[in-house]
Amino acid sequence: MKNTYGESVSITLFGESHGVAIGAILDGMAPGIPVNEAFIAEQMNKRKSIASLSTPRRETDRVQILSGVVNGYTTGTPITFLIENADTKSCDYSELSEIARPGHADYTAYCKYHGYADTRGGGHFSGRITAGLVAAGAIALTALQNKGIYIGTHISSCAGIHDRTFENIEKDIETLSHLPFAVLDDIQSKKMQESIQKARNEGDSVGGVLETAVIGFPAGVGEPWFDSLESVLSHAIFSVPAVKGVEFGDGFTLASLYGSQANDAFYMENQTVKTMTNHCGGILGGISNGMPILFRTAIKPTPSIFKEQNTINFKNNENTVLSLSGRHDPAIVHRARVVIDSVTALVLCDQLALRYGTDYLGD
Amino acid sequence: MKNTYGESVSITLFGESHGVAIGAILDGMAPGIPVNEAFIAEQMNKRKSIASLSTPRRETDRVQILSGVVNGYTTGTPITFLIENADTKSCDYSELSEIARPGHADYTAYCKYHGYADTRGGGHFSGRITAGLVAAGAIALTALQNKGIYIGTHISSCAGIHDRTFENIEKDIETLSHLPFAVLDDIQSKKMQESIQKARNEGDSVGGVLETAVIGFPAGVGEPWFDSLESVLSHAIFSVPAVKGVEFGDGFTLASLYGSQANDAFYMENQTVKTMTNHCGGILGGISNGMPILFRTAIKPTPSIFKEQNTINFKNNENTVLSLSGRHDPAIVHRARVVIDSVTALVLCDQLALRYGTDYLGD
Amino acid sequence: MKNTYGESVSITLFGESHGVAIGAILDGMAPGIPVNEAFIAEQMNKRKSIASLSTPRRETDRVQILSGVVNGYTTGTPITFLIENADTKSCDYSELSEIARPGHADYTAYCKYHGYADTRGGGHFSGRITAGLVAAGAIALTALQNKGIYIGTHISSCAGIHDRTFENIEKDIETLSHLPFAVLDDIQSKKMQESIQKARNEGDSVGGVLETAVIGFPAGVGEPWFDSLESVLSHAIFSVPAVKGVEFGDGFTLASLYGSQANDAFYMENQTVKTMTNHCGGILGGISNGMPILFRTAIKPTPSIFKEQNTINFKNNENTVLSLSGRHDPAIVHRARVVIDSVTALVLCDQLALRYGTDYLGD
Amino acid sequence: MKNTYGESVSITLFGESHGVAIGAILDGMAPGIPVNEAFIAEQMNKRKSIASLSTPRRETDRVQILSGVVNGYTTGTPITFLIENADTKSCDYSELSEIARPGHADYTAYCKYHGYADTRGGGHFSGRITAGLVAAGAIALTALQNKGIYIGTHISSCAGIHDRTFENIEKDIETLSHLPFAVLDDIQSKKMQESIQKARNEGDSVGGVLETAVIGFPAGVGEPWFDSLESVLSHAIFSVPAVKGVEFGDGFTLASLYGSQANDAFYMENQTVKTMTNHCGGILGGISNGMPILFRTAIKPTPSIFKEQNTINFKNNENTVLSLSGRHDPAIVHRARVVIDSVTALVLCDQLALRYGTDYLGD
Repeated sequence: MKNTYGESVSITLFGESHGVAIGAILDGMAPGIPVNEAFIAEQMNKRKSIASLSTPRRETDRVQILSGVVNGYTTGTPITFLIENADTKSCDYSELSEIARPGHADYTAYCKYHGYADTRGGGHFSGRITAGLVAAGAIALTALQNKGIYIGTHISSCAGIHDRTFENIEKDIETLSHLPFAVLDDIQSKKMQESIQKARNEGDSVGGVLETAVIGFPAGVGEPWFDSLESVLSHAIFSVPAVKGVEFGDGFTLASLYGSQANDAFYMENQTVKTMTNHCGGILGGISNGMPILFRTAIKPTPSIFKEQNTINFKNNENTVLSLSGRHDPAIVHRARVVIDSVTALVLCDQLALRYGTDYLGD
Repeated sequence: MKNTYGESVSITLFGESHGVAIGAILDGMAPGIPVNEAFIAEQMNKRKSIASLSTPRRETDRVQILSGVVNGYTTGTPITFLIENADTKSCDYSELSEIARPGHADYTAYCKYHGYADTRGGGHFSGRITAGLVAAGAIALTALQNKGIYIGTHISSCAGIHDRTFENIEKDIETLSHLPFAVLDDIQSKKMQESIQKARNEGDSVGGVLETAVIGFPAGVGEPWFDSLESVLSHAIFSVPAVKGVEFGDGFTLASLYGSQANDAFYMENQTVKTMTNHCGGILGGISNGMPILFRTAIKPTPSIFKEQNTINFKNNENTVLSLSGRHDPAIVHRARVVIDSVTALVLCDQLALRYGTDYLGD
Repeated sequence: MKNTYGESVSITLFGESHGVAIGAILDGMAPGIPVNEAFIAEQMNKRKSIASLSTPRRETDRVQILSGVVNGYTTGTPITFLIENADTKSCDYSELSEIARPGHADYTAYCKYHGYADTRGGGHFSGRITAGLVAAGAIALTALQNKGIYIGTHISSCAGIHDRTFENIEKDIETLSHLPFAVLDDIQSKKMQESIQKARNEGDSVGGVLETAVIGFPAGVGEPWFDSLESVLSHAIFSVPAVKGVEFGDGFTLASLYGSQANDAFYMENQTVKTMTNHCGGILGGISNGMPILFRTAIKPTPSIFKEQNTINFKNNENTVLSLSGRHDPAIVHRARVVIDSVTALVLCDQLALRYGTDYLGD
Repeated sequence: MKNTYGESVSITLFGESHGVAIGAILDGMAPGIPVNEAFIAEQMNKRKSIASLSTPRRETDRVQILSGVVNGYTTGTPITFLIENADTKSCDYSELSEIARPGHADYTAYCKYHGYADTRGGGHFSGRITAGLVAAGAIALTALQNKGIYIGTHISSCAGIHDRTFENIEKDIETLSHLPFAVLDDIQSKKMQESIQKARNEGDSVGGVLETAVIGFPAGVGEPWFDSLESVLSHAIFSVPAVKGVEFGDGFTLASLYGSQANDAFYMENQTVKTMTNHCGGILGGISNGMPILFRTAIKPTPSIFKEQNTINFKNNENTVLSLSGRHDPAIVHRARVVIDSVTALVLCDQLALRYGTDYLGD
């Protein structure tokens, strides 16, 4: 199913960047989960651009909940989130409908939709559609927190600048929940922001790597083969625009280790099974082992740059040259982190509901 | 669905390493696809261990087709592949049923199945189950070849030794189709094999990175959001045991480039839309752009090693020490490449059937 | 998936009777289908109550399209329909939240949602939610008509009054498309309406049987076993509230015939394969045979009646007596016919897209 | 998905009537369910023909379990059932491959599979494929019984002869579990069998109506809209060959009642919520209400009759006349009852696993 994901808990996305509104439907969440509108707004804020680093498009991103919530609690029926598009300047895109912006979906959308797709601002391909994911994800995150499960994502690297890795994960996740720019090391944070500004000043853009941790997730959830935790998480994460790589635990680094280095030794601590190291990222055979779930996501540089680019006009099949104007982010990695938190939360809620039933996440 | 994947074309896996038989059901393939049993056998051979590099377990891996094929052609109804388990030495595993082998699914399976799972040889978690994927994948690969679509995977790196990357992809895929050890550079191939033997001699194991290319795949296939080509491919690839990372195009490397470096410029050549570079791996906005689809898969070292390891007995929750004996591969990366080809073929057949209908892949 | 149905073309429903709004998302429709807002409004009107026969609740049922349509054509991306709830009198329901209305979902909703569900006006269980189905169905019906496929439903019986059966199906479907009360025989139509009014005057309600015909549907669509046309159609039809029976062709009557009476003899006419009779309702082995698809749907009487009824208070588990007031329909069978047309169209679009690809229904 | 049904607990079918073997894969069943091979054989026997009433084809129908069961218990991983085809006389069908048997899927299969399908004995469309359903259903029935949930089906009518309806359902289900010919009234049972024999002697066939009851099923399971219990049950039941109608509770009869007659009054008995009547068949708003689930299934007469029939040769598009020979059942309604029990059990296991989690049905 194209714009719907999940089995017991599912999410459906809709909307175009410059259409009337965008949004999402979250279905299958247990009844009785408290819905904190302030928390939703806070999460939406994390997804918003930071003035100094981003597009000047300013959306209020006010989330209206049209269904599925009564008296501040989820009802158990579909929750609909609506976010109106306010600050649209479609004129910026009028001349683009025939020219393939390199790195964008213009040409592939044309191959698929034969010219009927809404091309303004990337239309349905726009990163703006992730706003619905974040709104729905806020409820999923609340549901998980009520079960003692916490998720946090930081920018591991951006523009060649590296953050420190997770140390005290619980504390780091708490710290990240308050940071508008999710870098744990303050000095590196500043350097990254400067690098992004520098890219912007040069009419260029940068990408980055996000590192995510989940703590408190019970052992024994997931499946061997096609519903491995890695499968269902990567499926959702690769749905986020600009994601080009996902690795669990030590990921690609594992490929160059010896088994004796890569294996995580088990041991008992306070009647709890733990591993000395966590190279496998908390997942063995597709199933959680009770240790933190760890993964990293590669975000490509935003393709909208202001340098002149060679490309084609795909309606008359001729080569041409493109010079973009308009409002574009020089980086989205710092905005993407809350999107990754959100899809992770949605997938894990689905997994828990499948494993323990539809009431599990409720009161 | 746990052991089934795909919408229009789907695959279902069953079996345990030391059970009666393993196999797969391939459903939804178009009628009229020629079924070449010699090609199936050839693919099964690529998955088999190479004597000098692998486990001494020797399965004939003869594939019986129980349904769905008449007079050498697919009928359009479910195709069932059965592979009997012959060379099983379950006694090697008798003492393991309570001890968590590090890096294996023993402990997580116990959390999920409460001690009822078949633990012999890894049971349903065993890499042996991929034999069914390879049998089904052979028919998918044939169907794609009849449409001019070819897939090839080589070992990009293993044990610190690197192969050259794809150059003339068409020719490289042809070369790989005949290579038992899928490395394009002969000298590096030899070095890799020596490194694997060295690891075996030390009772250790190694992992590696696989690089896959798909050529001839039409533009305009895939979906934005949850059925992006990256989503559906990664979902299936992460189902393969030992996979811990997947990246498309330049993947994690993209994260450290500028947009001006990462964007692929479009141009026209012989009335065909192409890109100068292929950093995006042939996928933009989740949809194919007509260029080769490129991705890399990280395979962790096989967890079965002969060095002493700390671990736990999960039935009595006590720390213990494990010394494995028995038959184990010092590497599986060279066997995994045909598994990756197979799941890729299955996913792409599904995508094409969804896009162009259930007859598309037939005669 | 709970509120989503369909594989290649799917529909998702949301909303509660007395919430902010209700609606639907239609995903996977081909790009390039003309969207005729007047036709959508016309279909919505058919679903609306007729003053003399129904509830005095008067909703404008204006359908807003929030996404997926540009310049009057479908884009190929999700189409979102929003219908605001205006004329809600929730006070009528305030005392009902603990008392199980017989024949309603109050008690079963309580068992499932533990008291968190929106109970006003039936909440998410309300027939009002079918408005979203009808809006989405209008686009599906247009897409089918452009392929020469037409659907029509009449009230075969209601309150013991019977309409004639289909005769010239093409003409009958055309006639039905203009009838506000879908009965082919004018005299019987009048009698039925009088019977409904009589039931209303007595504080009671009536049900009925709907008969549906589809013409122009190609042979060879559907699947044996789990995706038989009967399976997928009945799945969707039984989703409509108050439906308690579905039969294809002669259905239950077939069960008392001899094979020699029930078999439909094939013959050739103008190079076309036809059957002399159509007892099987156009479906053999789960697959269309090119003849009209015929089925009948049983609608139970609306459970809201004004006679005193014995029931329970499910919060304190005590017997009680219920006397309903408020606005309630004495019948919904005449309103349900357009809902059945709509779900039929949605399911058939999905089947055609699966069979012939995602572009098939487009321009 | 074509030959797979279910979300948390799923069933996949494969095979052709005269192929090597048929079978099924049951996935997602909880670990720790006892697998009683004698009970499986008993259920298979109920599906087999009764010498005096059926085809002389005699299959041993020995069920081999290839995976998913260890030491007499389900492991939690896919359970594969294999049933070899032994007594095949394909020569009986050699001349049929171009001639459409009326009432059969020959022509529709040709439209769908373009002549590649296995046509011998109905191929994949054969009722023989239900043997896999019955084998899998036996495990589902055991799992339900361990939770106090029992299912029974009797022949409500056949060839114009009627059985009494359910009275003491618990006792009736117990009685039916031992009856080879599932009619509760002994005198009517004899009459029905005589009618079937008479039809056979005349080269004709008969159909019938099955009535099914489920007791002990908890309240609060199912969904409003697309996963209503009626939707998911009817979906699976209409997958069974020859089913042309399904009605829940009083079904089509409800359509001619007044609301005051059709509503089931609730009352408390021993702290349990019950209804005085059960016109709704235990389902309100798509969700179980704790009362017995009741439905009826219409089975058309078997289409294989020995009277001369008009039909077409669909390869050369000419009218022709068909006189069948070979082995055919004059009725299958008595064999279908265990198939209906089986699909009902499979669907209810899926619903319970979705509602209460994957461990619920286990030990």
